[in-house]
Amino acid sequence: MTHQAAISLGQSLRVLSEKPDDSAALVAADVPIGSHTDLSALREFAKECDAITFDHEHVPTGHIEALEAEGVKIFPGSKALVFAQDKGLMRERLAALGAPVPRWARVSTADEIETFAGGSWPVVAKATRGGYDGRGVWMVGSREAAEDLLSTGVQLIVEEKVPLRRELAALVARSPFGQVAAYPVVETVQRDGICVEVIAPAPGLGEERAIAAQQLAIDLATELGVVGLLAVELFETEAGIVVNELAMRPHNSGHWTIEGARTSQFEQHLRAVLDYPMGSTALAAPVVVMANVLGGEPGGIPLDERLHHLFAEIPDARVHLYGKQVRPGRKIGHVTVLGDSLDEVRARAVRAAQWLQEGK
Amino acid sequence: MTHQAAISLGQSLRVLSEKPDDSAALVAADVPIGSHTDLSALREFAKECDAITFDHEHVPTGHIEALEAEGVKIFPGSKALVFAQDKGLMRERLAALGAPVPRWARVSTADEIETFAGGSWPVVAKATRGGYDGRGVWMVGSREAAEDLLSTGVQLIVEEKVPLRRELAALVARSPFGQVAAYPVVETVQRDGICVEVIAPAPGLGEERAIAAQQLAIDLATELGVVGLLAVELFETEAGIVVNELAMRPHNSGHWTIEGARTSQFEQHLRAVLDYPMGSTALAAPVVVMANVLGGEPGGIPLDERLHHLFAEIPDARVHLYGKQVRPGRKIGHVTVLGDSLDEVRARAVRAAQWLQEGK
Repeated sequence: MTHQAAISLGQSLRVLSEKPDDSAALVAADVPIGSHTDLSALREFAKECDAITFDHEHVPTGHIEALEAEGVKIFPGSKALVFAQDKGLMRERLAALGAPVPRWARVSTADEIETFAGGSWPVVAKATRGGYDGRGVWMVGSREAAEDLLSTGVQLIVEEKVPLRRELAALVARSPFGQVAAYPVVETVQRDGICVEVIAPAPGLGEERAIAAQQLAIDLATELGVVGLLAVELFETEAGIVVNELAMRPHNSGHWTIEGARTSQFEQHLRAVLDYPMGSTALAAPVVVMANVLGGEPGGIPLDERLHHLFAEIPDARVHLYGKQVRPGRKIGHVTVLGDSLDEVRARAVRAAQWLQEGK
Repeated sequence: MTHQAAISLGQSLRVLSEKPDDSAALVAADVPIGSHTDLSALREFAKECDAITFDHEHVPTGHIEALEAEGVKIFPGSKALVFAQDKGLMRERLAALGAPVPRWARVSTADEIETFAGGSWPVVAKATRGGYDGRGVWMVGSREAAEDLLSTGVQLIVEEKVPLRRELAALVARSPFGQVAAYPVVETVQRDGICVEVIAPAPGLGEERAIAAQQLAIDLATELGVVGLLAVELFETEAGIVVNELAMRPHNSGHWTIEGARTSQFEQHLRAVLDYPMGSTALAAPVVVMANVLGGEPGGIPLDERLHHLFAEIPDARVHLYGKQVRPGRKIGHVTVLGDSLDEVRARAVRAAQWLQEGK
């Protein structure tokens, strides 16, 4: 999707890809194969690039620092990105900045987890690095469960289970010049730790709270020195909003912007990384709903045939397929629907994703 | 732009490109280099393709017929495409179908041209094959000019100079199944034979005439057996509409659909070629204006800097650059603006294109 945006801007996107059949490698024109954990591969890759950015957080921070020391232009830089890479550092920094965060602690023993819980199980344990889409997050309901988890050797933080009303996301982009553009705040609907729907703008969110969420994201982007996108995943509680996670790249909570906003998050990220002025974040319709397509059970109607049915039933559904092998629960695409009525748009988006997912 | 659409659909686009720095070759992942006039290159190319389509009309009809005879799936097929390739055959067929066309004749001598003119110069001479963007079209003002033109050996038809009020275009797509989807009729603004602006929907076009133009395009697509897009370029006169040209591919008059319609012409063309149901052609805003960016005079502010200024001034302008070398008068990109007010949207689109073109 970043390549689609690069094409419009007349930019040459070069992708370092681990495998030749990774999604981006299937569609980009210039795709050296190499691992993002191999410093020499990164160095070789960087030689032909004017600027480098990311579509995940898994490049080792030390490698990014090494390249920066050699003069490679990387956005977001390691000093910002580390707060999207390491949940412990993120929590410390956000607390220091006075941003609203759940009660949390770094832990390395079952005693520490039990003390943190204070008899109030479950607590949320998170791997400090490497998690995504619900991986690296565990509901820990007892001391025994805590011991089991620790025995895997994973570095952990624990957090209180926030009594949330729903989840929101505030997406902003910041250029090296310091311009920040904020998208409308969205609601993200989760199932089993995976985002299944994004509703823009977040229904029934008061203007005051929406502006507070945007301002929080703007402040964090500025304080952390982010260049590119910053997605701030939020819990909405009775009392207000609390920061759940940070991402500094095109994010699933912003896929709706491809058709639903005047400037897609992918173009916005490229504009920021290239230090162009930011594009308009205005909504393209009163209601925009994005529904993820997860891989279903093997068998059934082929994906191609599902697409036929979907196109026949909902001619204005905007489909994005990622060229990924279908595995149960894996995000293999998404569908976006625009319109005027929340209930109707949402029902059609969910129906469209369900067709692609289940073939019925 | 077709590649951008293919990415969303999860399709693998293979491009036969004459040169490695052609626009499509710069961005697509699978780009064998070869000439579209070389049958063996076409044959080799076709081996890896499920279906083949075109982004210009210049593949020799005989080559397409040869591949079809070998079982290659080509859309539009030679029997339809020839009417977009050969203006003489197009005029004959349209006349036979009863479609409104200018008075015309095939000519090969100055006497024939003089007889056709009947003292009423100028007449419009057109090369039967190979023209585009004003090339292959001449205003012939005298017998001497006719003789000069004939001396080049070009195959010609001549047409009356239609007393036109403005130019319109009707864009439809047709699937092999026979489904046809029609976009709103647009006004195309020409300068020196080159389209500079497209306004969707065509301002002040009555509903009756708009429907007549759409119906004409639907009928032609059906009668000619087109699969894929059919762009019908029209002259609007006091009396009604007259067909100027046909194109059977994504067309400049449809670039506005990328952001301005629910389904872009590029995706629609792919859907048709792949026999998917057609997408919604609904407008995404009340007014959509596309302005072409033509190459300006050499020198001046670099394109990159122009883009900075444009993005700062018009944050919602949607820019598409084609990665082409800048040559005066060459289409190197386009800009689309959406909104509610015709005058305001049009002024901003033209201003945006002018910035990119002239840097001021």
